[in-house]
Amino acid sequence: MTIAEKIAAVRAEMARQDLAGFLVPRSDEHLGEYVPPSAERLAWLTGFTGSAGIAAVLTEQAGVWSDGRYVLQIANETDAAIWTHLHIAEEPPPAWVAARAGEAARIGYDPWLMSEESVARFAEAGLTMIAVDRNLVDLAWTDRPAPPMAKIMPHALALAGVSSADKRAQIGRVLADEKQEVAVLTDPASIAWLLNIRGQDIEFAPFALGFALLHADGGVEFFVEPEKVTDETRAHCGNGVAMAARDALPGAIAGLKGRRVRLDHSGAPAWFAQRLREAGAVIVPGADPCALPKACKNPTEQQGARAAHKRDAPALCRFLYWLTDAAGRETEISAAAQLRKFRAEVEGFAGESFAAIAGAGEDGAIIHYHATPRTDRAINPNEVFLIDSGGQYPDGTTDVTRTVWTGPGAPPAELRDQFTRVLKGHIAMATLVFPEKTAGVQIDALARQFLWQAGLDYDHGTGHGVGSFLSVHEGPISISKHLRPAVLAEGMIVSNEPGYYRVGHYGLRLENLLLVQKANVEGPKAFFVFETLTLAPFDRRLIDVSLLSTQEREWLDRYHARVLAEVGPAVPEETRHWLERACAPLGSA
Amino acid sequence: MTIAEKIAAVRAEMARQDLAGFLVPRSDEHLGEYVPPSAERLAWLTGFTGSAGIAAVLTEQAGVWSDGRYVLQIANETDAAIWTHLHIAEEPPPAWVAARAGEAARIGYDPWLMSEESVARFAEAGLTMIAVDRNLVDLAWTDRPAPPMAKIMPHALALAGVSSADKRAQIGRVLADEKQEVAVLTDPASIAWLLNIRGQDIEFAPFALGFALLHADGGVEFFVEPEKVTDETRAHCGNGVAMAARDALPGAIAGLKGRRVRLDHSGAPAWFAQRLREAGAVIVPGADPCALPKACKNPTEQQGARAAHKRDAPALCRFLYWLTDAAGRETEISAAAQLRKFRAEVEGFAGESFAAIAGAGEDGAIIHYHATPRTDRAINPNEVFLIDSGGQYPDGTTDVTRTVWTGPGAPPAELRDQFTRVLKGHIAMATLVFPEKTAGVQIDALARQFLWQAGLDYDHGTGHGVGSFLSVHEGPISISKHLRPAVLAEGMIVSNEPGYYRVGHYGLRLENLLLVQKANVEGPKAFFVFETLTLAPFDRRLIDVSLLSTQEREWLDRYHARVLAEVGPAVPEETRHWLERACAPLGSA
Repeated sequence: MTIAEKIAAVRAEMARQDLAGFLVPRSDEHLGEYVPPSAERLAWLTGFTGSAGIAAVLTEQAGVWSDGRYVLQIANETDAAIWTHLHIAEEPPPAWVAARAGEAARIGYDPWLMSEESVARFAEAGLTMIAVDRNLVDLAWTDRPAPPMAKIMPHALALAGVSSADKRAQIGRVLADEKQEVAVLTDPASIAWLLNIRGQDIEFAPFALGFALLHADGGVEFFVEPEKVTDETRAHCGNGVAMAARDALPGAIAGLKGRRVRLDHSGAPAWFAQRLREAGAVIVPGADPCALPKACKNPTEQQGARAAHKRDAPALCRFLYWLTDAAGRETEISAAAQLRKFRAEVEGFAGESFAAIAGAGEDGAIIHYHATPRTDRAINPNEVFLIDSGGQYPDGTTDVTRTVWTGPGAPPAELRDQFTRVLKGHIAMATLVFPEKTAGVQIDALARQFLWQAGLDYDHGTGHGVGSFLSVHEGPISISKHLRPAVLAEGMIVSNEPGYYRVGHYGLRLENLLLVQKANVEGPKAFFVFETLTLAPFDRRLIDVSLLSTQEREWLDRYHARVLAEVGPAVPEETRHWLERACAPLGSA
Repeated sequence: MTIAEKIAAVRAEMARQDLAGFLVPRSDEHLGEYVPPSAERLAWLTGFTGSAGIAAVLTEQAGVWSDGRYVLQIANETDAAIWTHLHIAEEPPPAWVAARAGEAARIGYDPWLMSEESVARFAEAGLTMIAVDRNLVDLAWTDRPAPPMAKIMPHALALAGVSSADKRAQIGRVLADEKQEVAVLTDPASIAWLLNIRGQDIEFAPFALGFALLHADGGVEFFVEPEKVTDETRAHCGNGVAMAARDALPGAIAGLKGRRVRLDHSGAPAWFAQRLREAGAVIVPGADPCALPKACKNPTEQQGARAAHKRDAPALCRFLYWLTDAAGRETEISAAAQLRKFRAEVEGFAGESFAAIAGAGEDGAIIHYHATPRTDRAINPNEVFLIDSGGQYPDGTTDVTRTVWTGPGAPPAELRDQFTRVLKGHIAMATLVFPEKTAGVQIDALARQFLWQAGLDYDHGTGHGVGSFLSVHEGPISISKHLRPAVLAEGMIVSNEPGYYRVGHYGLRLENLLLVQKANVEGPKAFFVFETLTLAPFDRRLIDVSLLSTQEREWLDRYHARVLAEVGPAVPEETRHWLERACAPLGSA
């Protein structure tokens, strides 16, 4: 089917159901970032393959939205003759739809694919929101892939650090304290953390798709296809976890009459609130109770993160050495494949933590670029190459970006100036000391200040949370301009990734992962510092040392000395020799 | 009456009305910061005279809250045997009251003194909120002062820059665009700005207490005591402004049946929402429509601010010179009086913009200290003296803090280290370049970062908006840790006042006012810079030059050179000689 035929099919069904529009968000029934092929409705309908977005099909018009990361990609992947391209923050979908479909227009949506909060924003814009029984895309999508059915594995106590029974008892007490009897868990990462299990239902994030009800006594009902559950997993989960088939969920929800049920209105599909209300349950709005404890890694998980990064780093450094000789011979796809090959040799490698972003020259300016055979581009001499990648290991998840100059000539002064501003922001974040109760939005500008001085900025956050052998993008923390109340706390792992993107020319981004630790200061307030986990040199050819303060240069020299000491012994001799040069003190460059 | 007798009287009335508690916020019917003596109910009941706070009288217990600025003051001014002292952020009143009064307890409040939003927070905590007909404090307060009745003056077009008719037409169009027919204005500063009038009803802020309804056609009904309105003011306001007595307001609200009325649920007293609902009006929640245009000073107001600061600065510099000889002879109160005397000689001086904070030694650590005859303290040699003050002038409002070492000995190294960290934060803010759409919370940490590095912080915001011959604390902008969505925009005037407070020893604070200006940078995004308005030297004896970067030292030398150039010609010869030394380049110190 062509895109035009697909839209026509959706519009025909809209007409049958008397709808003036239908919404197609890029999400599955868990409203997470990574979705299985069976839920890639937005890509099927529009062609846009980014990780965040929504489409609105109206009777005459159609719009597709994403954020700053995907402005270029959305223009490349979707047909502007069919789709109006929109920026989610600048022209929010509710107002756009309301202005075109008319006041009180009936707009259909799939209550499994949108939160009650996001549906409410359309209703507030004056639209009449209609939950459809079956997704209109699914009705037309004849060759839709089957949902995933991978086996669920135990996550050993030696890796998890705390038993599932202890976690369940702890969260159960939280519910009891807040006078809640049941919590609805719709995030597979929360269920994986709570039950100490891991899955393989979707690429990049090792969890199993399913839903759970957690009771205040610590008991869990886990709704998941029985085919996924091995005897070993069943034994690992124990008596406190009752397994039920996925289609037993509606009945279980219907049985919650009169119960006080905690539900996350922004994270859970609207279906839950609608069915809980029908059932006569008392909905108590509240965040996913696993989100915060999951984000604060325990000492075992922290040690695992260090170990995983130490094993991941030699693969990355081997790749960076390999890259010194790649210009003129390799492409974005072959480079990403080579990095994956180096990582595949690492003990415990369980797959990439996301599709590596390898952007040569102007492709690097597409913030979440993913090279395809159609867009694949040679890595040329004397240009910028950006690579953002990560690995999943049983003891930790990695995520690292380096930007290099392919040489052999010297980079232009303007480029070195911009790279150094990004680096200064990275160092400001890495060396920050900050008090308890600090929200991400309070520190985001520290990474941007040197770019701002030159009238430059980047259109993405400075940092996101990272899971422990879970999703590489993990809540609740976000270091960005968004006014989110979540505060940084001990044990959180966050990325530190300022960047600068010159559209049509190159992208610069420097990313390490940071672990929040108590600072060693006296006084009435607790203070925190970041421990840098990632180990790989920054390309010295792109650094204008004259722009660095003494403290910044000292930090960089210390960091590079540590990279050499920790990674040097684990790489082949030739790589080690290169690493020695790459990590030498900057003064002697 | 003693405090115990006052509480007994309130409790007796609570019993008569079957109330388990009564709330006494520090506010008047406009919910602003400065209130007339007739509305100082919190001070009357508790003894606490700070500018923000609330008391809750329960049948057996009583609590009084304020924020970090007033922790020490509240302890000094109120009897701990009667009042539990509480921090508003750490133990919010709703939870405290609910835990003690019991679930669903009937708690009385005066609907004129609390916003619907703050009442809702108590209701959400499970309390039954009862709007009382007459304030329980007023029933007991037999010698309550009469409400103020000062004359209202025109604010000339040459100062306002834009006529009231133009402002009313502009805001009226905003209402029409948003399909609102009427806006309720409860903030006297908004009414003063909109009508180009000024008043004298309360100390420090030159506005007249009153209420207004603004119609989408630009017409205004102004509810104010007729005694306040002179013929000149009536003529100045013109036909578009209908004057009515204050007691005509309930009738006017009752007449809004079916009308779409814009109301600020956080800024307006709950009385309005309750009466509008009774009247059958359609309430459209929305911020005070004057708040943002009032905050963005037009070119005339910007020029006025520069002129007012240039006239204010010689008074302050004369005072700082006078202060060099004050230790051992003067006190906090005599120093503040001397500064007021210097300001009173300035052309156009219309009063202080707030009660000057003059804190010697340990009194400086009380963030919003106000010396009274009982607490007045000598200014001793070899200690820290902090003075925060400002003036009201027809063309602008000033607000400045300087912290000096009284000498003649040298200050301790630790003190110089802390002062220099505060100064570095001040300079980071003064030299910041930032993009459009930046909220205050995004930049607050830039002023704190150097203190944080040493495990230090300050428990107040870095900056607040400042009015144009209006309130010295003006919304909507706030540079603080609070997650407020208001963004910095061209023409806003904000304070830059990082500090550090060593309880029991001293307080350090360095405050200039800044004016937001477009930055001269190319590119797709607009960027802004701050123009520093305030002109006064920073005490070089407290600066550890070795902690400053080259750029910081250069900024300070440039700033001091400007102070000397602009202020030097306007001060007596002896002061000028001192100013020359105070403003000399730091290298030659």
